[in-house]
Amino acid sequence: MTTVDDVSRPSRLAAADEAISVEELQLAARNHGIPLEALRYDVTPAGLHYLLIHYDIPDLDPATHALTVDGAVDRPLTVSLAELRERPRVTRRVTLECAGNGRALLRPRPVSQPWLVEAVGNAEWTGTPLAPLLREAGVAPDAVDVVFTGADHGIERGVEQDYQRALPVTDAMREEVLLAYEMNGAPLLPQHGAPLRLIVPGWYGMAHVKWLRSVTVRTEPFDGYQNAVAYRLRQDADDPGVPVTRIEPRALVRPPGFPDFMSRTRVLRPGPCTVDGRAWSGHAPVVSVEVTTDGGATWAPAVLDEATGGDFAWRGWRHEWTPGPGRYVLGARATDASARTQPVEQPWNRGGFANNLIQRVAVVVLPE
Amino acid sequence: MTTVDDVSRPSRLAAADEAISVEELQLAARNHGIPLEALRYDVTPAGLHYLLIHYDIPDLDPATHALTVDGAVDRPLTVSLAELRERPRVTRRVTLECAGNGRALLRPRPVSQPWLVEAVGNAEWTGTPLAPLLREAGVAPDAVDVVFTGADHGIERGVEQDYQRALPVTDAMREEVLLAYEMNGAPLLPQHGAPLRLIVPGWYGMAHVKWLRSVTVRTEPFDGYQNAVAYRLRQDADDPGVPVTRIEPRALVRPPGFPDFMSRTRVLRPGPCTVDGRAWSGHAPVVSVEVTTDGGATWAPAVLDEATGGDFAWRGWRHEWTPGPGRYVLGARATDASARTQPVEQPWNRGGFANNLIQRVAVVVLPE
Repeated sequence: MTTVDDVSRPSRLAAADEAISVEELQLAARNHGIPLEALRYDVTPAGLHYLLIHYDIPDLDPATHALTVDGAVDRPLTVSLAELRERPRVTRRVTLECAGNGRALLRPRPVSQPWLVEAVGNAEWTGTPLAPLLREAGVAPDAVDVVFTGADHGIERGVEQDYQRALPVTDAMREEVLLAYEMNGAPLLPQHGAPLRLIVPGWYGMAHVKWLRSVTVRTEPFDGYQNAVAYRLRQDADDPGVPVTRIEPRALVRPPGFPDFMSRTRVLRPGPCTVDGRAWSGHAPVVSVEVTTDGGATWAPAVLDEATGGDFAWRGWRHEWTPGPGRYVLGARATDASARTQPVEQPWNRGGFANNLIQRVAVVVLPE
Repeated sequence: MTTVDDVSRPSRLAAADEAISVEELQLAARNHGIPLEALRYDVTPAGLHYLLIHYDIPDLDPATHALTVDGAVDRPLTVSLAELRERPRVTRRVTLECAGNGRALLRPRPVSQPWLVEAVGNAEWTGTPLAPLLREAGVAPDAVDVVFTGADHGIERGVEQDYQRALPVTDAMREEVLLAYEMNGAPLLPQHGAPLRLIVPGWYGMAHVKWLRSVTVRTEPFDGYQNAVAYRLRQDADDPGVPVTRIEPRALVRPPGFPDFMSRTRVLRPGPCTVDGRAWSGHAPVVSVEVTTDGGATWAPAVLDEATGGDFAWRGWRHEWTPGPGRYVLGARATDASARTQPVEQPWNRGGFANNLIQRVAVVVLPE
């Protein structure tokens, strides 16, 4: 008899010499990162923001969609999308990054969505704050977790599930957390959670539950798959690990010059070049960015652009560079106000999460 | 001394046991296909249409962008985007497919953008017809090719170039060919060629030049890279081959049920299920679609939806299926009015182009 266990395997690490599998390629072909030249836009245009969809994009009708608030509350609520749109309206610029960004560069490689460095985007999310709605429902004094359930349904490592992620109640009550129905001034696109999603500024993407249909308050810790099994930092399969939460600092270089189609190596003519990019952290504002052109041997400070997007949006930076002919490896290192920075050695864990290893951009400067 | 030849290699085939390389993965992470569940939409929403960008997305200013028409014409023209928008306005629904769709499934595998089956989309393109503009310029009676040049710049297989593709003059003069400035009713997105691109209904994607800045009429055949070297059907590296032109027929199944995250295997409960999808051909209208649930051993006719999108848009189809528990492999086969259909054996060529091998969707129907 054929069962779920025949189609869904436990998580695993790739063997030392194991290249990218067809299963990993399937995920890379449907999900996508930001093309790095799109780091030129402070607000990422539609279709260029990174996308990670665990199962299928559901087909929801905005005209009938409603959000339930239930569990350990005094007054369970059901609120239509139209009613949510009539509540106080807030727009926040927020950088979202997939917790698995950089996974495919790790050794050994955790076998999952094979991101290199590009699983990021910065958008303007419009919606209504969650906290007042929870206060209206009346959260129980002994509540510990708030579970957010999406309409996307599938199987993961043998467990059939709707996508569900919980936040500790204190995080769910942060005033910045939004029930968002617009992105960049337009109704949410299907792939970004239409008609309603959660936005949790500062946290990795797994917390920003898409296609949101219920909010359930619990007085016991949530032990669902995405909290208890996936999205934990652990060193081996038996390690209970700690939850993935806020975004570690990262800077990305917008690759200068022009590319070779196949290798994506960057080619420049000799002479002055402005190297620029974006930097972000979910823990605290970015306070400095350093740039290397020799693969990390030496570093120079970058000039930070004005911080115009608030505490949870990426920040532009630039560095003037005048290379002669030869080969270079560019990278950038962000440091935030909590003194967190990016490591030169890979910060490995079994899920490949929260890995903020410094990017390497190969550049060839041609002869005069 | 470091030169272009150090960063750009000749085209090649993967070895028999060679898995996907990091270079192929880099392309898969930035370009992307349509998530197959989005076959539910007759018009593909923004951000879900497939995308293949050879170099970088250029940054063009619509306020100053202009198109030049020159070469073997009586009256060379320069036309601003604003002037193009004042010309007769036409909207056409057109299915675009990458010529390399299916490449990563070929054996041996041509090493390039590693598409599986998902490099397709169907959009409404609005613009002004090209032919009247060419007539106003006065095409020389001995003209043979019309070269379209984009603003995207890079290196490919050792050749530094702006992206350029030519059409035979008779194809360029087809009334359906558009200079398009809108997609799905909105200004073109950067990644789809903003502010101006060519649309050549019926042809593979390489002909629909994005970021279009010039149209040059020639009295000699165009020997640029994308016509003379890339995008040719050839059996080996020495074969001069024939040009890639119109889209071969293909049908895709919208995968039923729900997926396992990692394997993307589809899971269903037993009972009635409507299997549906889309079918298209650039040669002639699709006249039939057949469905298999046993990997091609037997076929049943699908019911075609009404053809509402014109001759160059995909057409919906559906098939009622009531499976019992077990394993199935679904696929569909399109046939067009020119009697072209899809092969069961791979139609191999060295570039992996115009490959319309039948899709295989693995489905598990669970026990009752």
